[in-house]
Parts: sequence; C-alpha cells; structure tokens
Amino acid sequence: MISAGIVGGTGYTGVELLRLLAAHPSVMLKAITSRGQAGTPVADVFPNLRGTVDLNFTKPSQDTLGGCDVVFLATPNGTAMEMAPALLDQGVRVIDLGADFRLRDVEEWSRWYDMPHTCPDLAAQAVYGLPECHRQAIRSARLVANPGCYPTAVQLGFIPLLEAGAVDNGSLIADAKSGASGAGRQPRQHTLLCEAGENFHAYGAGGHRHLPEIRQGLNEAAGQPVGLVFVPHLVPMIRGIHATLYARLNDPNMDLQGLYEQRYASEPFVDVMPAGAHPETRSVRGSNMVRIAVHRPVDSDWALILAVEDNLVKGAAGQAVQNMNLMFGLPETTGLESVGLLP
Amino acid sequence: MISAGIVGGTGYTGVELLRLLAAHPSVMLKAITSRGQAGTPVADVFPNLRGTVDLNFTKPSQDTLGGCDVVFLATPNGTAMEMAPALLDQGVRVIDLGADFRLRDVEEWSRWYDMPHTCPDLAAQAVYGLPECHRQAIRSARLVANPGCYPTAVQLGFIPLLEAGAVDNGSLIADAKSGASGAGRQPRQHTLLCEAGENFHAYGAGGHRHLPEIRQGLNEAAGQPVGLVFVPHLVPMIRGIHATLYARLNDPNMDLQGLYEQRYASEPFVDVMPAGAHPETRSVRGSNMVRIAVHRPVDSDWALILAVEDNLVKGAAGQAVQNMNLMFGLPETTGLESVGLLP
Amino acid sequence: MISAGIVGGTGYTGVELLRLLAAHPSVMLKAITSRGQAGTPVADVFPNLRGTVDLNFTKPSQDTLGGCDVVFLATPNGTAMEMAPALLDQGVRVIDLGADFRLRDVEEWSRWYDMPHTCPDLAAQAVYGLPECHRQAIRSARLVANPGCYPTAVQLGFIPLLEAGAVDNGSLIADAKSGASGAGRQPRQHTLLCEAGENFHAYGAGGHRHLPEIRQGLNEAAGQPVGLVFVPHLVPMIRGIHATLYARLNDPNMDLQGLYEQRYASEPFVDVMPAGAHPETRSVRGSNMVRIAVHRPVDSDWALILAVEDNLVKGAAGQAVQNMNLMFGLPETTGLESVGLLP
Amino acid sequence: MISAGIVGGTGYTGVELLRLLAAHPSVMLKAITSRGQAGTPVADVFPNLRGTVDLNFTKPSQDTLGGCDVVFLATPNGTAMEMAPALLDQGVRVIDLGADFRLRDVEEWSRWYDMPHTCPDLAAQAVYGLPECHRQAIRSARLVANPGCYPTAVQLGFIPLLEAGAVDNGSLIADAKSGASGAGRQPRQHTLLCEAGENFHAYGAGGHRHLPEIRQGLNEAAGQPVGLVFVPHLVPMIRGIHATLYARLNDPNMDLQGLYEQRYASEPFVDVMPAGAHPETRSVRGSNMVRIAVHRPVDSDWALILAVEDNLVKGAAGQAVQNMNLMFGLPETTGLESVGLLP
Repeated sequence: MISAGIVGGTGYTGVELLRLLAAHPSVMLKAITSRGQAGTPVADVFPNLRGTVDLNFTKPSQDTLGGCDVVFLATPNGTAMEMAPALLDQGVRVIDLGADFRLRDVEEWSRWYDMPHTCPDLAAQAVYGLPECHRQAIRSARLVANPGCYPTAVQLGFIPLLEAGAVDNGSLIADAKSGASGAGRQPRQHTLLCEAGENFHAYGAGGHRHLPEIRQGLNEAAGQPVGLVFVPHLVPMIRGIHATLYARLNDPNMDLQGLYEQRYASEPFVDVMPAGAHPETRSVRGSNMVRIAVHRPVDSDWALILAVEDNLVKGAAGQAVQNMNLMFGLPETTGLESVGLLP
Repeated sequence: MISAGIVGGTGYTGVELLRLLAAHPSVMLKAITSRGQAGTPVADVFPNLRGTVDLNFTKPSQDTLGGCDVVFLATPNGTAMEMAPALLDQGVRVIDLGADFRLRDVEEWSRWYDMPHTCPDLAAQAVYGLPECHRQAIRSARLVANPGCYPTAVQLGFIPLLEAGAVDNGSLIADAKSGASGAGRQPRQHTLLCEAGENFHAYGAGGHRHLPEIRQGLNEAAGQPVGLVFVPHLVPMIRGIHATLYARLNDPNMDLQGLYEQRYASEPFVDVMPAGAHPETRSVRGSNMVRIAVHRPVDSDWALILAVEDNLVKGAAGQAVQNMNLMFGLPETTGLESVGLLP
Repeated sequence: MISAGIVGGTGYTGVELLRLLAAHPSVMLKAITSRGQAGTPVADVFPNLRGTVDLNFTKPSQDTLGGCDVVFLATPNGTAMEMAPALLDQGVRVIDLGADFRLRDVEEWSRWYDMPHTCPDLAAQAVYGLPECHRQAIRSARLVANPGCYPTAVQLGFIPLLEAGAVDNGSLIADAKSGASGAGRQPRQHTLLCEAGENFHAYGAGGHRHLPEIRQGLNEAAGQPVGLVFVPHLVPMIRGIHATLYARLNDPNMDLQGLYEQRYASEPFVDVMPAGAHPETRSVRGSNMVRIAVHRPVDSDWALILAVEDNLVKGAAGQAVQNMNLMFGLPETTGLESVGLLP
Repeated sequence: MISAGIVGGTGYTGVELLRLLAAHPSVMLKAITSRGQAGTPVADVFPNLRGTVDLNFTKPSQDTLGGCDVVFLATPNGTAMEMAPALLDQGVRVIDLGADFRLRDVEEWSRWYDMPHTCPDLAAQAVYGLPECHRQAIRSARLVANPGCYPTAVQLGFIPLLEAGAVDNGSLIADAKSGASGAGRQPRQHTLLCEAGENFHAYGAGGHRHLPEIRQGLNEAAGQPVGLVFVPHLVPMIRGIHATLYARLNDPNMDLQGLYEQRYASEPFVDVMPAGAHPETRSVRGSNMVRIAVHRPVDSDWALILAVEDNLVKGAAGQAVQNMNLMFGLPETTGLESVGLLP
C-alpha cells in the first residue's frame, strides 16, 4: 500500500483527490492537512465523504507528511516552493497540483505569478506531469508538476498537429471555456451563483497565467516557438472544460482523423471520437477521460479541434493520481476507471 | 457471474443501470433492449459509456432475455405487466423499475394509472423492493417492484416515526422537491432547459401517482391508515430529491435523534446526520445513500424530517442493484460503494 | 419630481432599486451611496445600467441625503437605526428595506438579530409596508419598514384564510423556497455557483429571522396568536420565492377560490390564478406581481396555497417603490408595470 | 397607433414580441395567430402576460392580418414565403423573423435550407434589417428580413474592422456561444434541462445555416469575399449570445478602440465598452443592447472582439421592433429603453 498525504485539502481539488484516493485499491490515506480546518472531520466539510473518509484535518507537519510515500500539494501558488524541498529531502515523492513547478523558465514564472521563484533548481528537476508526453520521465520522477486544467485540454488537442508539422505554427487559436469550479472554493463575488449563473463571458483576455504553460508545451511539441492566442471563458456550470482549437493546415487534404487516432491509439485516457462528433463536457463528468473530435470547417483551410475534460479530474486530481500510478509502478488506470456521470 | 438484461435502456434509468452494472464485479451485462434504437451502439447514445460498454441495443426478444439470470425492466407503465409473466416462466428473476407491481390493490392501481391491470396475481406475489423494510422477502423474491423515487425518500423519512407510534398519523405532510431527471428523457416542453431552468413550481397538487404508493407503505408502517398530503415540486437541477416532512408529535419531548439513529443503525444506505444538520442533495449525487436529519421547529409540537437521495440511484437504478444483490446472495453494497460527486 | 436617494446601493436590492427608479417617470435619482465604492461610477459595478444611470457612488452624507424627498435604506441590519433619526428630522421620508423596523416588539427583535435596538420609539412609529394590509397607514407614513422577502409571500398567502377564520390557527406550515439572490451579494461559500448550483437543501430549520416577522403579521390577521412552522430552502436559481402553505380547514367544503378572488379583487399586484393552477416563479421574474393558487389536496382536510414572487421586486425593491408611490400620492402601479421576463 | 399582428406566437420569439409590443406606446396589438393554440388565451400559454395581454390566439386569416399596418412573422422557415405575398398585396408591411428572405442568393438559400425558394423576387426586394448597416433602406422597406441571432452579434463585431480594411479578410474566426432559447420552444431531446444543463459543447461544426448569412454581410462590409470559420456552441443558460471574434490585423499598432467608438458613436443600441472590458451576457438580458469590447492579445498580431446580445431581443424580437420603429417614422428606441435584468 502507498501511504499518501494531501496538503491543502479543503478546496475542490482536495475533495476530488479524497474521492479518488479513498476508492483507490493501493492507497492508504494517511493525512490531510488544512491550517484553517485543523481538528474538523473531513466529512463535516464534505458530507459526500461521510462514512467513507473518517480522517480529521490536521495542521501540516513535517512529521506526519514526512512518513508518507507520496504527498499531493493542493495549495495556493507559492506554498509548494516552501514545502517541497523538505519533503523531497525526507524521501517523499511529491506531486504538486499548483503552478510552482510548471514552467522551466523561472523568470517567466515570476513575471506571470508576480513573486520571486525560490527553488529554481527544483523547477529544473520537476517533471511536467502530462503522461501522454512525458510518461517515461514521470515514472522515475521525485517531483511532478501536475499540469493546469486549461493546459491539459489545449495541449492534448494541439500536439498531434504540431508533432506532425501539419499546421502554420504561428496561427494557433485556443478559445477555451471552463465551469466555475476552476476558480476554486474561496468565496469571490464573480463566482457566486447570482453572478456566474445564467451568464457567459470571457476573462483574462489581456493575458492568463496558463498561456506561458501552454506555450511551453506547444513549443516543445512543435520544436520551435509557436504563436498562440488563448482566451478563456466562464461557463455557468460546475465542472468541465471545452477547448475549441483552430490552426491553419499546411495541406487542407491531410487525414486529420487518422493522425489523431494514431497518435492516441494506446492512450487509456484520450478518446478520439468518430469524425463529425461534438464531444460534450458531461460525457467526462467525474471521469479522467479527455474526448477529442477533429473537424474541417467548410470553405476554409483551418483545422478545428474540439476537446473536453473534467477540469477537476483529468485537469487536476485525476491526472495527479494517474501520475502517482506511473511513479509507483501501478497500472496507469488503477482507481480511475469510473465513467462519467450522465445525466 | 450473474448474467443481466435490461429492457428499455435509452432513458435516464437505463443509462444509470448501465453505469452501475458495467462496474459491478459480479455482473455480466448480456443484453440491453430498445425497440427504437435497435442496432445502435449504446455508446453512441450515451457517450459517457464509450470504451466501457460495447453492446448494441437490440429488439427485446424472449430468447435473449430468457437466458438471463435477472432482467431489469425500465419501461413505460403497462409494459412490465406484459413481459414479466413469460420471463418468470423461464426462470428469470425480474426487477421492475416501473410502477406496474408497486400497489397491491390493483383497482387503486387502475384508477391512478388509467388502465386495467392484467396481472393481479403477480401484483400480489411481487415484493416491494424497499430493503430497509422488506429485506428478507426480497432475498427470495422472483419479482421485485422497485419503489418510486419520491416514495423511497418519503417512506424512509417517515417510517421511524410511524413504527414508533410517535406522531398523529392523520397529519402527515410531505413537501417534496425533485430534479428534472425524474421526468425522464422523453422530450416534453415543461422539462426544456428554457422552461425548467431558473424556475420553481409545484405540480400534481391535485393528486400525484406516487401518493397511493407512499400511503401503502406508511399505512403498513403505522399499522393503520394514515392521512397524508403530498406535494411534489420541480427543482431547476438534474439529479436529487429533497423531502421535507412534517408530522405532529404525540410527545414533543421525545428523543427524535435517538429514534432515527437506532432505526437505521445497521442500514448501509441510510445516513442519519447529526442533530441540526441540513442534508444537501449534492452530497448523494451518483451515490445510493439516503441522508436524513431530524429537527424540532421552535415553538411548535411538530417534527421536521429532511431526507435527500439521488432519484436515479437510491430512487431507481441503485436501489434496483441493491435488490439484485439481496436476491443473489451478494453483499448488499456490492457495486454501490461510490461516493457522491461534489462539487 | 420626487428626489430620491439610496443608501447602500451595491447589493442586489440596490441594483434593483436603481433599475426601477431610473425608469420611474416621477423620480429623480439624486444620490446613491456606498462607503466601499465611493467615487466609482454605478455603471462600472452594474454594467446593465451603462447609458442609463450616470451617477457615481458617494460616501453617505447628511447633506446630500438630507435634501432628498425620500431615502431608501438598503443597508445591513443595524445601520438603518443609526441613520433614520437624522433623516426624519430633516423631513426626509424613509423606506427601510432592512429589518430594523419590522418588528414592533423590540425585545423580540434584539433576540433574533442579536443586537440591542437603539430606536424603540421609531420602531413603534414605523408602518409595516405591506400595502395589501396597511395601505392607508403607508400613505401618511414618514418611516416605512419594507417587509422581508419570505414574509411578503407567506403573509399574502395565508391572510385570506386567517382573516376569514377559516382554518385551525395552530397548524400553519410554511415550506418556502428561495433563489440565491435572497442571500445577497457578499461573497459567501454557500452561495457560490459550485455550492448552490445543482443542489437543494433546507436551511435555518432551527429558526429563521423571518419567523417572528411572519408571525407578527399572521397574528394580526388572525386576531390571535397563531402556531407556525416555517422552513426555508435554497433553490439553485437566481430570483424567485415559492411559498407552499398548508393549513387545516375548519370546513373542508368552503369556497377557497372565491375567498381569495374576493380578498384580492382590487389588488394591482396580487393575481389569484384559476383553480388548479401551479404558479411558476419565472412568471413574475422582474415583475412586482405575486401569483397565488389555492388547492384542496385529495383525501384530506387541508388547504394548500401556492404563492410566488420575485424576491428582489415584490419581496424588496418593487414593494419599496410601491410604498413610495403610496406615500407620495402617485398611482400605486407607477413605474411597476413591466411584466415578467419569460423565458 | 400602429396596428400590429403576430403570426406564430407560441414560441420564444413570439412571447418576447408580445412583451415588447404590449408595452410599446404606439402599438395596438390586433391579432396573434397560432394554428395549434387557436382559441386559447395568450395568458394561459404565457402566464407572465396575465393581466397585460388579454388576446386569444386565433387561426391565421388574411382578413384579420390584412387589416394590420404591420405583421411580424415568427414562423418556421418556409412559411413566410407563403404568407408574405398576399400580405404585401394588401398593403401590410411585413417583418419576417425567420430566414426566408435573409439571403439574396436564393440558390444558396435552397442549399442551406433544403427546400426550393418560391419568392425570388421578394428575396431581392427584402431589406436586411440590421439598422446599423441599412437604416435608410429599412425606413422605406415594405418587407424586412430580420437578421438571425448569431449573425447580428458576429456582424456588428466584425464590420468596423472590415469597413476599415484593417484585417486579413481571409482569416476571420467566429467562436460563438448561445443560450438554449435560440433552439426554440419545440420539445427536443438535446435542449432538455437534463441534457443541456451542466454541459457545454459545440454543434453544427460541419456547417451552420447562419454561416452564409453572416458571410453575405461581411462580404458587403469588406467589399470582397471574406474567409470565415464559424463555430456555434450551446451554453447551459436560457438567454444570451457571446461572440468571440478573431481577425489578423494588418497593422498591429492601429487604434482599435477608437475605430469602434467612432463607428458606433451614434448607435443607440451598440455600446462600445472601455478598453480591457469583458462584456457579460447578463448585462443585456431582456435589453436590446449589444455590448462590444476590443482586445489585443499579448504577443500576437490578432484582434480579439467580444460581443454580447440577448438572442431573443437584439437577436430577434427587439431588433424587429427597432425595425418597425424605423419603418413607421418613430424614434428608433421607442419601447426598447428597458435595461438588462441583473442579477
């Protein structure tokens, strides 16, 4: 059994990790920490876990966490940088669900996250936890930077085109839409039901923190710098991301469907849908699957890629468990087989 | 392995049965029928099942279904009466998720369902599948009448009071609220997003078909006829039932909390919450659990009971699987352990 | 023209007052105050008002407000007590949309609102602004206590029965449901879209602040103390209250429909729907109308009353404007004629 | 007073026309027709209109409609072609809210709408009712083709760029999102609350009927054929369209904000928001306003335009009333001044 700890477990990523790890056949949940809720039973905060998780939240302590085989950090940006070094020193393997180790260029990181990066060496060592691109490196990683929710969907949608050199790398457009759970559980006015419900709008059009992360991955896939416009939108729903991706084809007659089916043929969590399909976010609600469909818009030389994921699962907690499975030599799908809840 | 068939699998009860049975460790899904969709892959209708269920819908046939150990009937009212006799004759055990066998009084059934009842003998034999009341009989039943969604929540909420003789049996009020999935997947105007969304209203105030079913169960628990007002409401959400129940206490000082905790102490799917709690429907989304809280409103001699369930799980497909587990000697919770999806 | 001021204009009651007053033909909006947003254009906070309201928020000042004919107080509980005396001294007429002057019994007020009441004399003078009961007194009032959202719907639903002595006054049950805007615009966790969306639950079952206010009005209508159970619920929608009201009839054969039609025959904002109707909250979205339907549940001696309102209009800002119209001798419906937005 | 008739009044466009025309100071509603609902009071179908509209639906008849000054056709595609000729012969002015007269190229119309066009001469005469482009022609039009919902938002968003020759006309991308009311009131499975709620997906990626309509308008603005990719999506909300528009700038340093402010300076229903704004669909809920914001995404030479409208108002009924105002010499904003309902 893998003994696991969670730091910062009172948000949506935390409860989703708890749901997945509690049902995972090879994991023993050892500790879940929260400064604010220390002493409170987990089941009081998340009543869906009543009868399933009987832990209390505790204050984060090196003692407890140091004895874990793996620690998941579901903390605000900047906290993982503080906690990871000591954990790694104690031999704990760390999966950070925040952004601290996602960018290899720590100067760019500092610009976007508006604070100095205190662990450039760890940022260099950390493996970017997108199994579809870095499976081998993840297996042996001590520190995994779990990708952001938008970056997972956008990268998985674009990389077959970029790896194949099939498109004009300078004209990538990612019009992305997310449910409100991506904004977290901290009370903010704009995510109140009365503000975000029955409403739709773009945000961050001036530049969103996921832009450099996506660009880093796309540059890697393309082997050269890409030009990317990324516009996120808030959808009046709880879970789900839909990425609508546009790229100009070099050869309008190429076999897009075949390209995607081949690229993802052996991926357990990427489903290339039949030609003409329109993937729905609800088809992956609560599931670790990404579903992708490729289209050729009429009278144009553009490729249109539609990709959906559950932002809390493949976009966060589920992908973290997938990474843990790889790191500990388990079958990659262990504990992640459940299907989407529809309707 | 239990070989199972589903008749009428294109509705919400059908997809939920598929989701649960596909993950059930002791079940082999043998056939799923639909006259309208015969030949279509299940995964085309329910994309959440892509990669998990690879059956096609087929026309209902006595041949295929007759070879099953158990058949679930998820059909419109009146169809189960036609199909059950032949299946039972072939030795198949039958769980009807419709209303055909729920009322022992077939004349009352005919009045409420507006058609003659063609199998009064089977109606008399059928076991009402509420495990919390009829566990023993269910184990040996050949034909189980799976309870309706409202009746499950309302009965589980009221019966401790009635069994204990604690209230005025003539003054029971059940103010119930349901998500729109209870109305099914047939396109109807009043369940369009633009009609049912951002809207709340009562319906069936003149008399709802679940009234006689609830009354039958409450009469049995009380040992005498009860007086019940039942008013259902439509909530702008997909899943969930919330029953708000009122009954006048004989002794305002009695220990309500103790009564409920004791009655349900060994029930795997009834969670009596701490005093003062307000159960939320989302805490059981996708789960087979019913959560109940008991209250004593200020300056009154009324008991207030709050009960929540997922209408598609404990209110339909999950309870059907629970009944199947009992009928086939499996642990009652097999395949039903997953927790609510929150948020 | 009536010159009007609004104190505390950044919440949902504030924006609704602005919407109504900006379109009111006899009102000149003079000032809208907010300590937190002083200096900010109203249209920056509420973009729906761009091009319609060109005021900036200002700090509350006796100077500005003292020159108004009427001031609406849309402030947290406790603030109106502080501000009303000086405004009244300056000859300003005051409509308080908060709770400070709703209860004549200031000791009971203190118990429920958990602070001392500093203006018992004004509480005694204030007129409870439910025009359907206090129209004459409102016309000459200097200080109007605008009713709460739940109290408006529940009182209008029950009073015909109580005034007529038609029911057992000791057995009143009000099962009420509200959209999330009733909880205000302050960021709180439980009203986030991800918490309140796709979810339904009761709250305040242990005792809600609107209980004594409702009871005060019902006692008055009945001419004696009534017994009332009041249970509010949160509906996953933005606007709307639905009150489902139960009372035991003295004479089960009485003409309920006639009673209600007669009682409200000349009320411009109470619509008694035809027998058998189920009023929908959306039918009054954005409108000042209350719609009521009366039912006789089968096999019982209970009356069932269904009442809907828009909690921000008839339950708050609209009723305040209705009161203003009465106070200033305008036709009662001025500026309140717009119909519900459906769908 | 203008006497007005509505043909096909039981859908969402119909009820919205009724809401607007009932409050219009210069309109007398003379008849509203529906074959299916003839004889039924309008207020029974749309309870928000109880007490405001006391007409009954009637069968469409040349007699009644022929006496109107203007008739609004809110009918399925193909019906307007049948009815318009006789009405025009009787001297009635006609505003068609359907698609029959939107395309000047009737062969292209036939391809997209899959039926022959029976009135090519009227299609040639009809004026495309987008006042921001065709105000003069609308004033004297006998037959106005009211624009589609998506085409209104997309055209108003793009045309300043195209008229100014500021972008690569071959690289226009319109990623559009609509609430479910755009799909109409006919019961269909995919617009049930349980299918469209808590879900997001693209549709019509293979080619949507609004594509040729948009292209016709953009070609006109550009003075040459444009290259356009148009992808619509379904948002889990009732009202609102958000168009996210991308075009490659010829001069990345041009003054986009100034261009838009100048183009729409005297438009009563186009609001160019301040630089950096993100327009919200709810800010125009129930209002005839379009709000537009322009952005320059970082590290790119693309322009990003965000445009919102209420699909039932500026995208349908409100624009029809705006056209009527122009046709009858009324101030263009008459009856269209109400602000968005927020929250």
